[in-house]
Amino acid sequence: MKKKEEQGPVSLEMNMNFVEIIEKKKKGMALSREEIHCFVQGAATGSVPDYQLSALLMAICFQGMNAEETTCLTLEMMHSGDVMDLSGIGGICVDKHSTGGVGDTTTLVLAPLAAACGAKVAKMSGRGLGHTGGTLDKIESIPGCTVSLTEEQFIRQVKEIGVCVMGQTRDLCPADKALYALRDVTATVGSIPLIASSILSKKLASGADAIVLDVKTGSGALMQTLDAAVDLSRTMVEIGAKAGKPVLALVTGMDQPLGTHVGNALEVKEAIHTLSGRTTGDLLTVSLELGPRMLIASGIAEDVEDGIRQMKAAIASGAGLQKLREMIRMQGGNPAVCDDVNLLPQAPVRVPVPAPRSGYITAMDTTAIGYCTQDLGAGRKQKTDIIDPAVGLVMCRRLGDRVKAGDALCELHLRSEAQAEEAIRKMQAAITIEEAARPVPPLIYATVSPGEVHYAEA
Amino acid sequence: MKKKEEQGPVSLEMNMNFVEIIEKKKKGMALSREEIHCFVQGAATGSVPDYQLSALLMAICFQGMNAEETTCLTLEMMHSGDVMDLSGIGGICVDKHSTGGVGDTTTLVLAPLAAACGAKVAKMSGRGLGHTGGTLDKIESIPGCTVSLTEEQFIRQVKEIGVCVMGQTRDLCPADKALYALRDVTATVGSIPLIASSILSKKLASGADAIVLDVKTGSGALMQTLDAAVDLSRTMVEIGAKAGKPVLALVTGMDQPLGTHVGNALEVKEAIHTLSGRTTGDLLTVSLELGPRMLIASGIAEDVEDGIRQMKAAIASGAGLQKLREMIRMQGGNPAVCDDVNLLPQAPVRVPVPAPRSGYITAMDTTAIGYCTQDLGAGRKQKTDIIDPAVGLVMCRRLGDRVKAGDALCELHLRSEAQAEEAIRKMQAAITIEEAARPVPPLIYATVSPGEVHYAEA
Repeated sequence: MKKKEEQGPVSLEMNMNFVEIIEKKKKGMALSREEIHCFVQGAATGSVPDYQLSALLMAICFQGMNAEETTCLTLEMMHSGDVMDLSGIGGICVDKHSTGGVGDTTTLVLAPLAAACGAKVAKMSGRGLGHTGGTLDKIESIPGCTVSLTEEQFIRQVKEIGVCVMGQTRDLCPADKALYALRDVTATVGSIPLIASSILSKKLASGADAIVLDVKTGSGALMQTLDAAVDLSRTMVEIGAKAGKPVLALVTGMDQPLGTHVGNALEVKEAIHTLSGRTTGDLLTVSLELGPRMLIASGIAEDVEDGIRQMKAAIASGAGLQKLREMIRMQGGNPAVCDDVNLLPQAPVRVPVPAPRSGYITAMDTTAIGYCTQDLGAGRKQKTDIIDPAVGLVMCRRLGDRVKAGDALCELHLRSEAQAEEAIRKMQAAITIEEAARPVPPLIYATVSPGEVHYAEA
Repeated sequence: MKKKEEQGPVSLEMNMNFVEIIEKKKKGMALSREEIHCFVQGAATGSVPDYQLSALLMAICFQGMNAEETTCLTLEMMHSGDVMDLSGIGGICVDKHSTGGVGDTTTLVLAPLAAACGAKVAKMSGRGLGHTGGTLDKIESIPGCTVSLTEEQFIRQVKEIGVCVMGQTRDLCPADKALYALRDVTATVGSIPLIASSILSKKLASGADAIVLDVKTGSGALMQTLDAAVDLSRTMVEIGAKAGKPVLALVTGMDQPLGTHVGNALEVKEAIHTLSGRTTGDLLTVSLELGPRMLIASGIAEDVEDGIRQMKAAIASGAGLQKLREMIRMQGGNPAVCDDVNLLPQAPVRVPVPAPRSGYITAMDTTAIGYCTQDLGAGRKQKTDIIDPAVGLVMCRRLGDRVKAGDALCELHLRSEAQAEEAIRKMQAAITIEEAARPVPPLIYATVSPGEVHYAEA
């Protein structure tokens, strides 16, 4: 394949040599801008067949991509479709993204809380995927509430109340859509350059000025090791720096569900309790780590301590919960759920999962807990599945807790009694109880900013 | 994916978990018989999409396959379609296969010569591929000669005269056909388990009792290093042993065209000259290495020396050439070409390629020479291209020869003058002339039999 010196349009002829691009990456060589352009355009337009794309994806899984290639891939994917223009909102628009977890409803806590502190939170969220929940599904569990807004409604709402969370409207990152779907069925998901470019291309295309990332590690995370999570964080922070957008990443633990509630309406309930100051715990702790970084990036807080102070004040004053009320109302939902969580959909059957033996809770297979909730109806196995907003579970115990045989480990919220037996078996299998206690893994592992990884004190 | 203990039919459900099979190979684990069955059936029937097959092929390129997996893959591919029954011929049917080269027409020398010595040579050959020539195309350059015979004609001809070379009739190895086509466009050709299983599945399905392999190494070969060629040979010999068929491999050099003639009718001419004893050189040398092994496998020769003696006698007596006459006549062609090679198609234009400088010929890019011949019309760039039987080239010099500037390096046989300029340029670029001589690489590198690699003396 001939290299072009100038940054001109890439000719169609390049597609004909796609096998040489695959061969080059297979040999471990770096791809040029033109070759990555050909790859991304081929995915976006369908001009390169899936079997060639998947061969290249697998070669990337083995050979990786350097920082320059990964940035190039991200920007090419970002520009493969529309790029949102949020300049009409005025000020700095800040976004927050999690790599996905179980019982992780920080967006529903943080988006209104940051807005209550003065930030502009214009956020496009996703649906549940695999064992992880999705913010859009959670919002839709609020009676009447929609995530289908026009772009004008979206921008007007952020201008007016400082916060809006909705689904994608425009044709953002079609190349990522195609590659994401392909990766899922070709065992090419677990590759740092592919994950980083997929996440950041969408965030950059959705127009945010600054991005705070929550990169999960542990038994319920895509990145199961700390090293992999730090690598992914570093890669995304570097891409942000090269793209001229401040990106900061926190590496946080996903060795057990973050909040106690898992399931759509159940997580909305926990978010409301957290915003009203009635619930503390890991969900609040992580929110108070991520939130101050959003405020700093927005020029609202001077430092982390100042950010924490402002956010705690917004909880105490009720300003955070008030923002959630406003957001729900403007998105067509019933804001009264914020004052009476019983207005949220509720599952008819509640069944405790008893501890099969006495001892200490030493580990949880958080991915299995996520899939168990999905099986109950809280997530989709196929795109066309309809979600049951009410079902899920509430964890009664956390890692390190001592339990006696028969104690409730969690409470299942079920559509019918028939679901109980299998779910109990799965939850008992997912939670390890041992005679001796083990150290509880940390919640906050590291903060990753351009050129710097700051590990939290153990 | 659940493993089955019994060797029963594999359920459809397995296809649904194909992503787990890819993941397993990606992690470097060995695939089970059931998983390989699922892969091969998926390729043969189209039930597994190409993008999943290509992802697995790429993972195999990186992670390899152990001997058991490779044998299993070969046998599954062999049984993915029809398996020929040559028992009606009686006696041991011996086959010979080359991994492909340039100016390599050993089949047209060896098939009649071995038959003249009493062997049963029932051979299905292939078309030219990439830069390498194909025996079927060469046979079809003989006026009237066909390679499209029925299975009955094939078996009758071998019974009657001991030799037949034709194209595939039955639906042999459909899985290999699908995977081969896919590998070609996904940069997954260069993998020893994939190459070995592709070659041997076809040879085993075509019913041979014993197989002699000519594994090429050098600038015109798929395996460019000796180590890779020996590895491939060892793998194929092992598969043969596990499949209960004697397989022996010779590793031979492809650092320059084997014969002097490159092109379809030109190679037939050289085969006739070799069988009539008028031409000696590397083509005859390699034929007299491979041929005795065919006779030994057929129980006709006691050892290599005996085999060489018998083959030389068949050349001297004219029995070898007589077998070629019989074969051509029975396949509808004009046997008089064996007595007057001017009856073969001839190109109207002949142009010498002058040496651009004086010195020693130290290297040839044999692949480039093959592609140059293909460009002249001797090979296909696309499946539908029609071959020009007459065009090609005749090498005037070999590696190690001293030339003066202006001496003819080769003579081009062209359809028109217009082809000359580019072909001269390509041939001059393909042949390296240096001031100092370099050692000429060997022609015969090694003999590989089960559990044994015997390297030839340098």
